[in-house]
Amino acid sequence: MNEVDKLTELFTQFPGIGPRQARRFVFFLLRQNTGYRAMLIRAIQDVATHVKQCSRCLRYAPLHVKEPLCDICADGNRDTTQLMLVEKDTDVEQMEHSGAYAGYYFVLGGSLSLTGKKYAIREKELVQYLQKYGAALSEIILALSATPDGEYTADYLATKLKDDASVQTARVTTLGRGLSTGSELEYADAHTLVQALKNRA
Amino acid sequence: MNEVDKLTELFTQFPGIGPRQARRFVFFLLRQNTGYRAMLIRAIQDVATHVKQCSRCLRYAPLHVKEPLCDICADGNRDTTQLMLVEKDTDVEQMEHSGAYAGYYFVLGGSLSLTGKKYAIREKELVQYLQKYGAALSEIILALSATPDGEYTADYLATKLKDDASVQTARVTTLGRGLSTGSELEYADAHTLVQALKNRA
Amino acid sequence: MNEVDKLTELFTQFPGIGPRQARRFVFFLLRQNTGYRAMLIRAIQDVATHVKQCSRCLRYAPLHVKEPLCDICADGNRDTTQLMLVEKDTDVEQMEHSGAYAGYYFVLGGSLSLTGKKYAIREKELVQYLQKYGAALSEIILALSATPDGEYTADYLATKLKDDASVQTARVTTLGRGLSTGSELEYADAHTLVQALKNRA
Amino acid sequence: MNEVDKLTELFTQFPGIGPRQARRFVFFLLRQNTGYRAMLIRAIQDVATHVKQCSRCLRYAPLHVKEPLCDICADGNRDTTQLMLVEKDTDVEQMEHSGAYAGYYFVLGGSLSLTGKKYAIREKELVQYLQKYGAALSEIILALSATPDGEYTADYLATKLKDDASVQTARVTTLGRGLSTGSELEYADAHTLVQALKNRA
Repeated sequence: MNEVDKLTELFTQFPGIGPRQARRFVFFLLRQNTGYRAMLIRAIQDVATHVKQCSRCLRYAPLHVKEPLCDICADGNRDTTQLMLVEKDTDVEQMEHSGAYAGYYFVLGGSLSLTGKKYAIREKELVQYLQKYGAALSEIILALSATPDGEYTADYLATKLKDDASVQTARVTTLGRGLSTGSELEYADAHTLVQALKNRA
Repeated sequence: MNEVDKLTELFTQFPGIGPRQARRFVFFLLRQNTGYRAMLIRAIQDVATHVKQCSRCLRYAPLHVKEPLCDICADGNRDTTQLMLVEKDTDVEQMEHSGAYAGYYFVLGGSLSLTGKKYAIREKELVQYLQKYGAALSEIILALSATPDGEYTADYLATKLKDDASVQTARVTTLGRGLSTGSELEYADAHTLVQALKNRA
Repeated sequence: MNEVDKLTELFTQFPGIGPRQARRFVFFLLRQNTGYRAMLIRAIQDVATHVKQCSRCLRYAPLHVKEPLCDICADGNRDTTQLMLVEKDTDVEQMEHSGAYAGYYFVLGGSLSLTGKKYAIREKELVQYLQKYGAALSEIILALSATPDGEYTADYLATKLKDDASVQTARVTTLGRGLSTGSELEYADAHTLVQALKNRA
Repeated sequence: MNEVDKLTELFTQFPGIGPRQARRFVFFLLRQNTGYRAMLIRAIQDVATHVKQCSRCLRYAPLHVKEPLCDICADGNRDTTQLMLVEKDTDVEQMEHSGAYAGYYFVLGGSLSLTGKKYAIREKELVQYLQKYGAALSEIILALSATPDGEYTADYLATKLKDDASVQTARVTTLGRGLSTGSELEYADAHTLVQALKNRA
């Protein structure tokens, strides 16, 4: 396998990238000057060096020097009574971008699977998190995807949290379900309409 | 213009049909036997004869013989305290299909437009409806699209309803907003997340 | 089944129309005034009355009064030495629209199927056509789709035509294969490139 | 700008990658172990070290040790009488993959633009190529995209080649145009049909 094929193969492991686009990436890199490639390599090294897993929420982010915490977890002004459980690092960014939430996060690292294919949520780490920070919580928001796997994971977590001594006083909630912005009734599925009606206000 | 072109042109007025598909419709009809075309013509005539606008909710539906009401409006077992305002006839069908609603409907016939392009809701008819049936209502659900036009229409109606003497005691609600079934956090827009968070439960 | 459901079902038989769009057609028709529906019914009747199968090329088209021929088949100025075999009525229109062909057509009414699902070309009628008009032909163009079924049909017809005494002197050709207008090499499949190279000029 | 943002920005320069997918790349890299990132960095360095521009066809490829030539240009068994001009490196790979061509290539590095936006073909280098290898050529194949820019470039090159003393005896051809594999007559544009008819055989 030559160098083009080898780099192509590594790029096909990138999320959403097939062989053809991976190959275009390789030729794109070859056409760039040495400076761009050096910058890219440097940026990959830098991101790996400076961006580590936050010891509290477990998302990857630039950490503080003194303590291994991300900006959010190190921010003393956030609401310590609220915790949001999300699947992915980017979910934290999406939610922050919305500007509507001021509590803390915990990144599950995925969801459980109804078909049993992957089983990859950080359950042990969540238990430890709650032992440490659970006493202050008045609400735990299960912010999982509105998919069968996401709902299955939320149900599983809700049951676990009910039995967790560290958070007995916290209310467990889920994100509101209903019509998403931009959608029309005519194209909404029955389940969404049921939820939208139930959650009317 | 020959007969093929003429029928093609009429089919292009059907919702969502371009010239090429309209033409395919024509050739499809030509290839069918006389029986199918006769059935189609008969069905168009029948639908126009038997399916009329319900005098109460204003949707098109097969009406009862004794009184000009659709099945829903003629059904005495439904909840007379609830009224849902929808844009289109098919919205009624979608909502009925969800099985989650047991009140009555009123079809607005469209929405107001922020850009002023169309102005076509049955406002006068709604006022008359409320004069007749408003006293019994404890809730009016504004089930409009989660689009800028839909929200503008809902806001407009909410203001009007507040001042409407016929329904002073009814609560005005809107359908729940949030994650629609099947959606993932990663692809949700900021506005949907804000709503999903606000409507968590 | 009520009238709305019945007309919906008839519209779902239209090519490319699913139940939801069929239903939108019905409500569209109900919202139109009586005039539009009358025009539509009249146009369907007219097209069935005046547009008949041409006795020569077998396509549906408005026919001449004196003889049951379409405009093309009745046009004495076209090239009697060329015959193009196409699958569908709309293929004739597409080819005429290109303005590149001045011979006659014969509509096969479909293609043979490699998987044996449908077997619907007008083979007997083609034999009769060639007995009547074959002597004048110097070329028969097999203008079938560039799909497996289309190629299978073209191969089948080529073999049959070779043995057909009525057209012994006619050359049998197929449409050129290669890069279609607008396509880039990068996205062309291997088979198209092989053809494009073979047919370079 | 932190390290995540910086690497995200570099990935958005990759062909076809928007900000959201670029960010997913970054988090994907962070989740991988050190080994994968090291391999990726190494592969980028290796591809830049070992994959150079072939001095003859100007495409990027692993070059031979003794002479700066790619596999194709170093292969003495290929047909020295044929030269194919292509836009991009990947076009060479696509054509090789088809297995239908045994001559040599020259990579133009792009196409001319009808709207004048980019002007980036290696014209000087082509002249030099032809001075060196033109005497042996009996055919030059202009394998450009079947787009307006591609056709404009082909026309431009055809004119230039006619006046080029180095290749006076070579025939200049273009790839065949017509129905591409998988296409149906019904969806073919008029221009493709004109070409398909012209190139019938």
